[in-house]
Amino acid sequence: MINGERLIERPLRWGMVGGGRTGQVGYKHRTGALRDGTYSLVAGAFDLDAERGRDFGVRLGVEAGRCYATYQDLIAGETARDDAVEVVSVATPNFTHYEITRACLEAGLHVICEKPLFFTVAESEQIKELAEHKNLIVGVTYGFTGHPLVHQMATMVKKGMLGDIRIVDMAYTHGFNSGDDVGAPEAVKWRTNPKTAGSTFVLGDIGTHLYYLSEIVLADLKIEKLLCDRKAFIPSRAPLEDHATVLMHYNNGARGRLWVSSVDAGNMGSQRYRFVGSKASIAWSDSHPDQLVYQVQGEPERIMHHGMPYLEDESLAVDRMGALHTEGLGDSWSNIYLWIAQAIDAKRRGDEAFLKTHHYPDINAGLEGVRFLENCVRSADAGAVWVDFE
Amino acid sequence: MINGERLIERPLRWGMVGGGRTGQVGYKHRTGALRDGTYSLVAGAFDLDAERGRDFGVRLGVEAGRCYATYQDLIAGETARDDAVEVVSVATPNFTHYEITRACLEAGLHVICEKPLFFTVAESEQIKELAEHKNLIVGVTYGFTGHPLVHQMATMVKKGMLGDIRIVDMAYTHGFNSGDDVGAPEAVKWRTNPKTAGSTFVLGDIGTHLYYLSEIVLADLKIEKLLCDRKAFIPSRAPLEDHATVLMHYNNGARGRLWVSSVDAGNMGSQRYRFVGSKASIAWSDSHPDQLVYQVQGEPERIMHHGMPYLEDESLAVDRMGALHTEGLGDSWSNIYLWIAQAIDAKRRGDEAFLKTHHYPDINAGLEGVRFLENCVRSADAGAVWVDFE
Amino acid sequence: MINGERLIERPLRWGMVGGGRTGQVGYKHRTGALRDGTYSLVAGAFDLDAERGRDFGVRLGVEAGRCYATYQDLIAGETARDDAVEVVSVATPNFTHYEITRACLEAGLHVICEKPLFFTVAESEQIKELAEHKNLIVGVTYGFTGHPLVHQMATMVKKGMLGDIRIVDMAYTHGFNSGDDVGAPEAVKWRTNPKTAGSTFVLGDIGTHLYYLSEIVLADLKIEKLLCDRKAFIPSRAPLEDHATVLMHYNNGARGRLWVSSVDAGNMGSQRYRFVGSKASIAWSDSHPDQLVYQVQGEPERIMHHGMPYLEDESLAVDRMGALHTEGLGDSWSNIYLWIAQAIDAKRRGDEAFLKTHHYPDINAGLEGVRFLENCVRSADAGAVWVDFE
Amino acid sequence: MINGERLIERPLRWGMVGGGRTGQVGYKHRTGALRDGTYSLVAGAFDLDAERGRDFGVRLGVEAGRCYATYQDLIAGETARDDAVEVVSVATPNFTHYEITRACLEAGLHVICEKPLFFTVAESEQIKELAEHKNLIVGVTYGFTGHPLVHQMATMVKKGMLGDIRIVDMAYTHGFNSGDDVGAPEAVKWRTNPKTAGSTFVLGDIGTHLYYLSEIVLADLKIEKLLCDRKAFIPSRAPLEDHATVLMHYNNGARGRLWVSSVDAGNMGSQRYRFVGSKASIAWSDSHPDQLVYQVQGEPERIMHHGMPYLEDESLAVDRMGALHTEGLGDSWSNIYLWIAQAIDAKRRGDEAFLKTHHYPDINAGLEGVRFLENCVRSADAGAVWVDFE
Repeated sequence: MINGERLIERPLRWGMVGGGRTGQVGYKHRTGALRDGTYSLVAGAFDLDAERGRDFGVRLGVEAGRCYATYQDLIAGETARDDAVEVVSVATPNFTHYEITRACLEAGLHVICEKPLFFTVAESEQIKELAEHKNLIVGVTYGFTGHPLVHQMATMVKKGMLGDIRIVDMAYTHGFNSGDDVGAPEAVKWRTNPKTAGSTFVLGDIGTHLYYLSEIVLADLKIEKLLCDRKAFIPSRAPLEDHATVLMHYNNGARGRLWVSSVDAGNMGSQRYRFVGSKASIAWSDSHPDQLVYQVQGEPERIMHHGMPYLEDESLAVDRMGALHTEGLGDSWSNIYLWIAQAIDAKRRGDEAFLKTHHYPDINAGLEGVRFLENCVRSADAGAVWVDFE
Repeated sequence: MINGERLIERPLRWGMVGGGRTGQVGYKHRTGALRDGTYSLVAGAFDLDAERGRDFGVRLGVEAGRCYATYQDLIAGETARDDAVEVVSVATPNFTHYEITRACLEAGLHVICEKPLFFTVAESEQIKELAEHKNLIVGVTYGFTGHPLVHQMATMVKKGMLGDIRIVDMAYTHGFNSGDDVGAPEAVKWRTNPKTAGSTFVLGDIGTHLYYLSEIVLADLKIEKLLCDRKAFIPSRAPLEDHATVLMHYNNGARGRLWVSSVDAGNMGSQRYRFVGSKASIAWSDSHPDQLVYQVQGEPERIMHHGMPYLEDESLAVDRMGALHTEGLGDSWSNIYLWIAQAIDAKRRGDEAFLKTHHYPDINAGLEGVRFLENCVRSADAGAVWVDFE
Repeated sequence: MINGERLIERPLRWGMVGGGRTGQVGYKHRTGALRDGTYSLVAGAFDLDAERGRDFGVRLGVEAGRCYATYQDLIAGETARDDAVEVVSVATPNFTHYEITRACLEAGLHVICEKPLFFTVAESEQIKELAEHKNLIVGVTYGFTGHPLVHQMATMVKKGMLGDIRIVDMAYTHGFNSGDDVGAPEAVKWRTNPKTAGSTFVLGDIGTHLYYLSEIVLADLKIEKLLCDRKAFIPSRAPLEDHATVLMHYNNGARGRLWVSSVDAGNMGSQRYRFVGSKASIAWSDSHPDQLVYQVQGEPERIMHHGMPYLEDESLAVDRMGALHTEGLGDSWSNIYLWIAQAIDAKRRGDEAFLKTHHYPDINAGLEGVRFLENCVRSADAGAVWVDFE
Repeated sequence: MINGERLIERPLRWGMVGGGRTGQVGYKHRTGALRDGTYSLVAGAFDLDAERGRDFGVRLGVEAGRCYATYQDLIAGETARDDAVEVVSVATPNFTHYEITRACLEAGLHVICEKPLFFTVAESEQIKELAEHKNLIVGVTYGFTGHPLVHQMATMVKKGMLGDIRIVDMAYTHGFNSGDDVGAPEAVKWRTNPKTAGSTFVLGDIGTHLYYLSEIVLADLKIEKLLCDRKAFIPSRAPLEDHATVLMHYNNGARGRLWVSSVDAGNMGSQRYRFVGSKASIAWSDSHPDQLVYQVQGEPERIMHHGMPYLEDESLAVDRMGALHTEGLGDSWSNIYLWIAQAIDAKRRGDEAFLKTHHYPDINAGLEGVRFLENCVRSADAGAVWVDFE
């Protein structure tokens, strides 16, 4: 179990771009980073409104002089200091991820970026190359994949407890965009505009969570071809989609389906996963994350609870609160930020052996998410036809 | 509420073909038919093993002389009597439905048949014509569509409580065929053989339930095109499928998906339905049939319970046990058999006005199920491509 | 599994007192009795309004001449016939149970009576003696104790799968009487009047269900002392209660608690049971009766489903619909009526050996329910103090 | 919503007594305190093993010189510094709470203490007096009462949405002590020894959580009398209990029951609450804390979710993650630590007006918990009889 003892040498000096007072996303980053003393928030360009951003930063405990108006200022100001930030989190709209990440890397800073990472695979590969060249870490915040039961699932699949994987069923649907967008807040508007959101709305916004979690659990499976059918029920969102269904064929013969929607009126179920094997299935949802359904065909259904001794070591190792004590999204973010910190620490120490086996949502996790989106869009725009996964 | 008072003039003289001792399907028919005194079981050809069938029939209270070896004998024997059966239920493997139904109709008997009704639309249309010509009823036993909350859903949609329908999500999956079929019982074997099962396995066996229920709830929607991806995870079942996914586009722009599987290891969820509109959604499953989830976007989720005064009249009218008193599959079958009896009674009385508005799973319900299957197979066999719904 | 094959020689000639059109309780009796051809409804005194009762009976298929105005008329009329009723069900308000049961027994008729059986243990013992003297059966309709999973629980406890029983937790609460009784229907009014209901309201009306089910599951346990705290939240119901809590000490050291209420606003959970042993617990509710929670300390929780091969033989033997096919209250009533029919049949055949091991809700089940009520009332009326169970 | 912006002037200098590496309780304190930069961990006496405690503290980021061997050393060492700790958390076995709290207060330090606060009401009143005299805050860590939906419940009751409160039903049961204590870890052993645990085991250990939460929700109700029946199913735990049932009569006529157990084999339900009024009920459990069941008699059940706009302002104000984003125990602890910090900050600023209306688990919350235990023990030890609540 994790108990707050530092797992790295010293706290990392950390800055944020975005994540200011007008939204709640930045707080998830801070919840993840600050709990265990692994990061120390020392700088930020929190807000497009520089004055509001400075006031906000100061109330977070950042020195006024290190609350910058823009990310460019942050990089310039910090790199001039002896105690400069080492790692920067990017919690801004999608269309700025690429340029901010590139600028930070070029300035020698590690980066932690929101998903979907960038607009294209090409951009992602450039950044991957740049990070490698600069010997820097890029982490991606797939929020709920730090939960202990996600890693329970991965280990169960790996150990063959399900048999051969046959069916993958994933959904992340809600109804918060069931109405039209007249008078919608900025956070909705930029997500439905291709210039600021990229080539997708819900596929990128929530579908990438599903895809990355499935990559963790199904480490050996690859998609061979897919078909994506997407639609904007609110016409003003077109060509982006507020609803999409994807069918997948995997390289082992498994079949998958994925559903994302922001017009699923009233649905509060959040992310739901079901992995079916020849012997057994597992099902998990982040709406009740502390329980995992494990169904062996012909036996009573089993409900497993986080933190219980019967779980796999891989799950117990990343538990924080213990059995009966509900873990939430914040606990998952704490793990993700911790794992990224460990990667950065290893990079600093030149410990490439550690990095070889250390699991965290890295640049490849971000890149593969973008690749998934590109394939979906290619299929959808060709009329919801099957395309080879490239 | 229904309380057992006879809603038709007198009990119908009823016979069964199939439904003998070696399976449990026949008991569902008898549960449906006998509870309220609407039918009187007077004859049967219950079993391929004539001796066993006679013994069984006698223990059901049928005279030995009216327990026949074959359906042909039954028709011959009964039509020679003054008190002949009036209606015959067909609870035999799929490949015999057509010939038995035709023979009964030709002999002037009403028919109640298991689903999937026949192998082809062409057969279904012939039977429809024959039944019309003979002035006889053909009912189809879509087992769970008699439940009061199914009719609650239909009324809510009709009244516009969901707004415009946007998304239809349906699944009926289980894992009872996760293992291979070596040594499987006859009831499994004939279902996976095209000669005895027709062109589908799970699509016909359980998918037709989903499709018919959606027709009830979404009375105004029609499928314009669909795509079906099917697979036999147990190769010996090919070309039939033990797993299939169908995507649908409806005439009002709605999107649908349907999943059927008999290799969904450990899944005990049975049928699950979700209908999403622009304002609200409803969700129902026959595994907990007495509750209906009603979710208005932006309001607390609501759980409705069968038999409660806040439900629509259409639902309360067909309730049998009352609130807090769980209704099960048997109660639903009782309603279906009752509604078919009312249709037969009206036919006998020549009351075509009644028949015009009376709802029950009729020959069209059967025919449309077969049409759905034909479209699925056409799509699947062309490589899981989109096909216009014909 | 049960499939409708007759388990007794021939259908029993059956009559009803009460259970007419104005309530739904009679339909539960008919659902239980008529489904399998075990009983044949031939006579009735269905209603205090003789005309309405006759019309109702005829619509149930009873000859007009055997629809009687009173139970006295029924006894007189029937006993004069060669084909007289053999068994009579009593579905009338509590205060008439004793006199009708006594009269039927004296006339040589078996009786099936609603719970709570009578007002006092003394009455119950008189009837028990009379039934023995007359060699007749008295059955009591504890509605949900016919469910297959109730008998799964009993067998699990008997086999020691829970270890030593330590804790018994039972509740049956609803909120249908949360408001006052002004303008309440007759069915509510007689239940809150000591003259017609006896010495309790909710304890007798719903608490006896809990108590009898616990007797089935905990065959070896006896209450040594109890404490009952009862209250009428609607004052007009006093001295009867609309809410009561009972604490129990069992002879093996186990502790129990029982809660009944009709003012538990909005509660739709119906009956809930939890039996805790030194090794494991089981939990069941009739609101989702087809699943049983089985919790071994230190292992994942298990959900068992009715009809599945992993269940005990005792449970599978009384299953009717099969796994995945929801069984409801009606299926449970069918089992209870069947078991009583088997007892009557054995009595008719003089098969006392069968009766020695045959389980059904008999006169003792009714008598013990009344004894439980008497002890509760004695405790409550003395100020909610501990009393030895007598 | 809370987003990490500092709600007090500057971080409080914070120390811990107990909460070391061998248990997980200290991590809950640190999770609560460190997330938002409200506290700064600067000192500790973390462990009875001084060496281990120092190593642990250093890995938490505390200077080695401020990792003390004992709480006495901590007080001595810190009070000699200009930058001394201002507030100390006590996360040690029950029997040391009193002496450590007293010593800290006498040294001028605010205290945050685990529950149950002390052994007796008398001790609690002494400490209350001392804290008032010293003008210091004593906070008590009732872990889950910081959750937004707890405050939703309190507001709903206060606004009369339930009508008059009639029934209170509370339980906190688990089975982790179902086996005997041979070879049990120290954390179990001291809890079952009266010298180290006080006069109760489960009543104090988990029952005080139930009681305090009920005080928040039912601000206007007082217990008038209660009856407590307790038992040690594992005899070595006697005279302390591993199972107890309490019945309560409230001053407004309401009836309550409370169940605590550590031998409820397999139960993973954690804390469960149900508050029933004349019009409606609410139910909540910390095992699925983000949803609240709201049942108006005669209407569909409602499920409310945390963070949704339809909730009361009092709930939304203390939400941290937003709707769909699961909040867990850690989020609740963060709120409790924040509220205590605000109290300490107000005390420092001399802002007594703020303190008059500011809600947090204060010395009275601790004292009332002890009072509840004293009444329970008095009843239980007199033979589980009714006692007036004193």
